[in-house]
Amino acid sequence: MHSFTQLVPLFEQRFANCLPFPAKPQSLYDPCRYLLQLGGKRIRPILCLMANELFGEINDDAWNGASGIELFHNFTLIHDDIMDKSPLRRGQATVHTKYGMVAGILSGDVMCLYAYKQFANIENYLPIAMKLFTDTGIEVCEGQQLDMDYETRDTVTLEEYINMITLKTSVLLACSLKMGAILGGSLDDNANKLYSFGKNLGIAFQLKDDYLDAYGTTEIIGKQNGGDIIANKKTYLLIQALECATESQKEQIKTLLITNNENKVANMVALYNETGAKQECINAVVKYSDIAFKCLEDVALPTKRKKYLFDLATYLLQRDK
Amino acid sequence: MHSFTQLVPLFEQRFANCLPFPAKPQSLYDPCRYLLQLGGKRIRPILCLMANELFGEINDDAWNGASGIELFHNFTLIHDDIMDKSPLRRGQATVHTKYGMVAGILSGDVMCLYAYKQFANIENYLPIAMKLFTDTGIEVCEGQQLDMDYETRDTVTLEEYINMITLKTSVLLACSLKMGAILGGSLDDNANKLYSFGKNLGIAFQLKDDYLDAYGTTEIIGKQNGGDIIANKKTYLLIQALECATESQKEQIKTLLITNNENKVANMVALYNETGAKQECINAVVKYSDIAFKCLEDVALPTKRKKYLFDLATYLLQRDK
Repeated sequence: MHSFTQLVPLFEQRFANCLPFPAKPQSLYDPCRYLLQLGGKRIRPILCLMANELFGEINDDAWNGASGIELFHNFTLIHDDIMDKSPLRRGQATVHTKYGMVAGILSGDVMCLYAYKQFANIENYLPIAMKLFTDTGIEVCEGQQLDMDYETRDTVTLEEYINMITLKTSVLLACSLKMGAILGGSLDDNANKLYSFGKNLGIAFQLKDDYLDAYGTTEIIGKQNGGDIIANKKTYLLIQALECATESQKEQIKTLLITNNENKVANMVALYNETGAKQECINAVVKYSDIAFKCLEDVALPTKRKKYLFDLATYLLQRDK
Repeated sequence: MHSFTQLVPLFEQRFANCLPFPAKPQSLYDPCRYLLQLGGKRIRPILCLMANELFGEINDDAWNGASGIELFHNFTLIHDDIMDKSPLRRGQATVHTKYGMVAGILSGDVMCLYAYKQFANIENYLPIAMKLFTDTGIEVCEGQQLDMDYETRDTVTLEEYINMITLKTSVLLACSLKMGAILGGSLDDNANKLYSFGKNLGIAFQLKDDYLDAYGTTEIIGKQNGGDIIANKKTYLLIQALECATESQKEQIKTLLITNNENKVANMVALYNETGAKQECINAVVKYSDIAFKCLEDVALPTKRKKYLFDLATYLLQRDK
């Protein structure tokens, strides 16, 4: 059995070896190489490998699945950055900023195909893995579209928001785990519980991310504090605050949304506190975390065997501790 | 056995039935529905079905493969139109013109995934079909990238040009045929000959397209005559003309490339005639057509059985007759 920290270098090595993008056309593959060398936490492929190892030694199919998932994830990052007009990714220029929009679109496309090239190497359970992955990929696109749609909408409900982050973020974590399990020969019931574990873990993780943007310290989260507030992003905190606010508080929030002075973050955080949105957000993180851990406990395997997945989930959810 | 004309309505029906894109998010799927209802000649899926029927009755796997290939082709059209900044497709607004660039990128992405969703339904020979298709998709991206690269390059050789159109256009025709054959249980040798048939047919078709842009009549080709010349597109004719030109002719061509008066098309066509580029282009169409037909003849099946593929190739290559 391997811990997260042990698996990361093993994955990096396999990933680099299975990915000698061709030299030419350079204008197509340089952007791909550039993005991949920026690194990343590799959480999705490691979840796939860990789930696979629950049912035996990590097999080649799982390595291929893990690589495909990481490629797919990076493909979505390239296209999302274009759509979100993001200048930076992991502290460096985004692909379209560095190489232009055309290169961004096309190197994203080809990276998605390279994901399937990895999947095509899977020897057992290929049809079920392909269906699971493709359905998930479609959901990720739907989630991104909802995210874009919500930006220009006046109101978004908490339910809609949870649905959006589930599609955009959580289902790929869930799919990573389920794919690892399936490729390890797991029975449906365990694979589905791992899927639910990943899905709820992903929701909790995203809500925690919303929380940390307002309440974390810059050092810990590695980005500008209050960035979501400055960008008027419809996070769980903002949606919840608007739902719980008195008429007067609602007016104050709306006024803050159209201003951009230096007190904006502090004033909005104060309103998150007063409306109870802060506490509701903490409660929601706990709620989805609890469901996630319950699902993991329900996987019909000895507790000891699930330790590293448990540790990883704990690590992901307690980033401020 | 079915002719092209018989297969088109059968395909349209199956294609419509297997494709009820979800209602929501509307902003994601409306662009997909819009593009598909614009129609198209459906040559790729029909090639897949015809190749399949060479080896028995058309089976469900071939219908799924054909639908997947058509979806993939339409995905590339959406993204190519963004990259080429094309306002029109099949006489109507392109997806990004009608719905915006974000919708264009994302609905293209999701359509590519729906292609794989169709492939995932293939019951026999899935691994080999997936590898073939994915490798082809990667080549199509490489071809599009080369096409973009060549736009800004000073010189492109004939060899580079043939390589580019092979990747951008021909390999998907070749793949359609080979996939149909594989899914029909064909032996490697026949499947590979059908692949070569499609590849050379595609090259001949593209060169004929270059030829017709300069020498066809507007009525026949359905688009502005000389459009490639007006846009200074590096077609076979232009590259060939530059290669065969005397110093004086070369200067005349270069002068024409930086002018845009009303005689540009007529003057360039005259230079294509004088340099021998016109004849060389005709020769090249004949050369690749001959190779294509030879490959089809070499497929180890009774000539009668291959009649409809022969007819389709003849139809595609003799559009001006």
